[in-house]
Amino acid sequence: MADLSREELDGIYAFAVNLGKEAGRMLMDAAQLRFGDERPKEKEHVEKENAVDLVTQTDEDVEAFIKDQITKKYPLHKFIGEETYSKGASRDYLIGNEPTWCVDPLDGTVNYIHLFPMFCVSIGFIVNGKATIGVVYAPFLNQLFSACSGRGAWLNETQQLPLVRNPIPPMPAKAPAGCVFSCEWGKDRKDRPDSNLHRKVESFVNMAAEIGGRNGRGGMVHGMRCLGSATLDLAYTAMGSFDIWWEGGCWEWDVAAGIAILSEAGGLVTTANPPENEATAPVEEVKLGSRLYLAIRPAGPSPTETGREGQERTVREVWRRVRNLDYSRPGA
Amino acid sequence: MADLSREELDGIYAFAVNLGKEAGRMLMDAAQLRFGDERPKEKEHVEKENAVDLVTQTDEDVEAFIKDQITKKYPLHKFIGEETYSKGASRDYLIGNEPTWCVDPLDGTVNYIHLFPMFCVSIGFIVNGKATIGVVYAPFLNQLFSACSGRGAWLNETQQLPLVRNPIPPMPAKAPAGCVFSCEWGKDRKDRPDSNLHRKVESFVNMAAEIGGRNGRGGMVHGMRCLGSATLDLAYTAMGSFDIWWEGGCWEWDVAAGIAILSEAGGLVTTANPPENEATAPVEEVKLGSRLYLAIRPAGPSPTETGREGQERTVREVWRRVRNLDYSRPGA
Repeated sequence: MADLSREELDGIYAFAVNLGKEAGRMLMDAAQLRFGDERPKEKEHVEKENAVDLVTQTDEDVEAFIKDQITKKYPLHKFIGEETYSKGASRDYLIGNEPTWCVDPLDGTVNYIHLFPMFCVSIGFIVNGKATIGVVYAPFLNQLFSACSGRGAWLNETQQLPLVRNPIPPMPAKAPAGCVFSCEWGKDRKDRPDSNLHRKVESFVNMAAEIGGRNGRGGMVHGMRCLGSATLDLAYTAMGSFDIWWEGGCWEWDVAAGIAILSEAGGLVTTANPPENEATAPVEEVKLGSRLYLAIRPAGPSPTETGREGQERTVREVWRRVRNLDYSRPGA
Repeated sequence: MADLSREELDGIYAFAVNLGKEAGRMLMDAAQLRFGDERPKEKEHVEKENAVDLVTQTDEDVEAFIKDQITKKYPLHKFIGEETYSKGASRDYLIGNEPTWCVDPLDGTVNYIHLFPMFCVSIGFIVNGKATIGVVYAPFLNQLFSACSGRGAWLNETQQLPLVRNPIPPMPAKAPAGCVFSCEWGKDRKDRPDSNLHRKVESFVNMAAEIGGRNGRGGMVHGMRCLGSATLDLAYTAMGSFDIWWEGGCWEWDVAAGIAILSEAGGLVTTANPPENEATAPVEEVKLGSRLYLAIRPAGPSPTETGREGQERTVREVWRRVRNLDYSRPGA
């Protein structure tokens, strides 16, 4: 398929934003069925069901809605959704050069089950392997993040990202000190020597500990945050709220929309796993299906370096403090 | 001073809610000075200041505003504010039986500096040593939490807390499994053997690890969350979003309003540090100035136990997995 024209892409973007709003409202409507006590008869049956089953059903319903809308409007586009994919046998990376929608109907599922507001719908559109459009809507927070390559990244369609942009601040001179570091414990909790859990914890402690601690690896980050949503981690990195996000184990639908938004805002996304020669190896662009992600917020120049140089310096300072995580992927 | 009448208390509550809204708007107005790029001249000077200085100034301004409003309306009430207290030499616990306002003008300061939305104003009112009124307003999230003893706990004045209340779910049978666990890394990052940092991390890993792991201490919680605001941790526990919050090192202004809200919603707050005989020791009510907090969400009965029994069972399961933290307090 030939490249999309500017006009086609803008049309797809407008469609995606509306789709995100509608899907987010579906999520919130289903959540609100569980609130309050005004309609005891109806609610009683809802609350007697297992909240997890209810959420699984919502997840499937919202994905079916999104897929149906996309298929009607763009029958030639490919569709990859979290629910559909997870039911299949293959764990291969399936995104090629053709225009592809990559969708998580509900990111932050645990949050949604517990009604913690950090959940969202995540709609990514990928062209030639590149995350080109991203729409993330967190309805409980009333926060809509959107971006299209060449059109800027936005909060609620009115505030351009990053929020502080006159000028965009440089990365802190002593990063990761001065940085907010976002990370996730995830679901992989095996207590074996050198398991991913222990590699993560060792990395977290290095980032947190005082300067001079941990045999020189102490990063003394300004704050450690865990939200339970990879998509929102990326969206808040695009906002400039988080300086660094480091994670392994999630999938392309968890990050496609967020990477589109962060990239358009001026952020950098590369691999979580430190390469050999971490101090000098090139900082390569992330592979969407790699399951290993390190994201740095948009950064402006300082008197001594460009924004990109500051971001790459921060990447290397993170790599110096984190362990390789053991996630892999056929085809990525 | 004699006890306050219901009417007096309701008047103080209405005043506190309005005060919280006004103070929250001040925080958001100051934050928005840093957004966008529409007014380059004005903003240039703002952005050239250190963001930290700007925030410190806002913190002080908002506390002065709140103190001024309270002093005008209730000249006989005592006032304790984070900014004022921190400048004094004493670290004693100063709250007695007299009606006392306990205020943090800005909780989640690191979040505010970085413009991550999890910041708020926190206004507590204490009578006879008990947190009786709480108002927490997070303006970027547009979330106002409020409660007054005997009047229920509310989100945005319309949705009663906890959100799911028909019925209020019991604590999970295998808690902490099935629970969302909220915790904070905090500022105390010393890398010494058995420092608070390492005690916290050991506790976090116990709560996170698979069942059977960690020599039987693995808690396999459903999710680990870190927001960077003790006040909002408590507010989300009152909502039912978090099942457990465990923390040491914060101060009474960080928790007074949140404890009032959580208590009124039906939650339980006790000490973070496991007592001797953790399996049988009484679960005592938290001391507001103790700097050691363990909070459990509101819980309904199951077929085999009351809500309170489920909460106490969860407290003991947490105590079994966490280390004592080394924070103390004269007078508390």
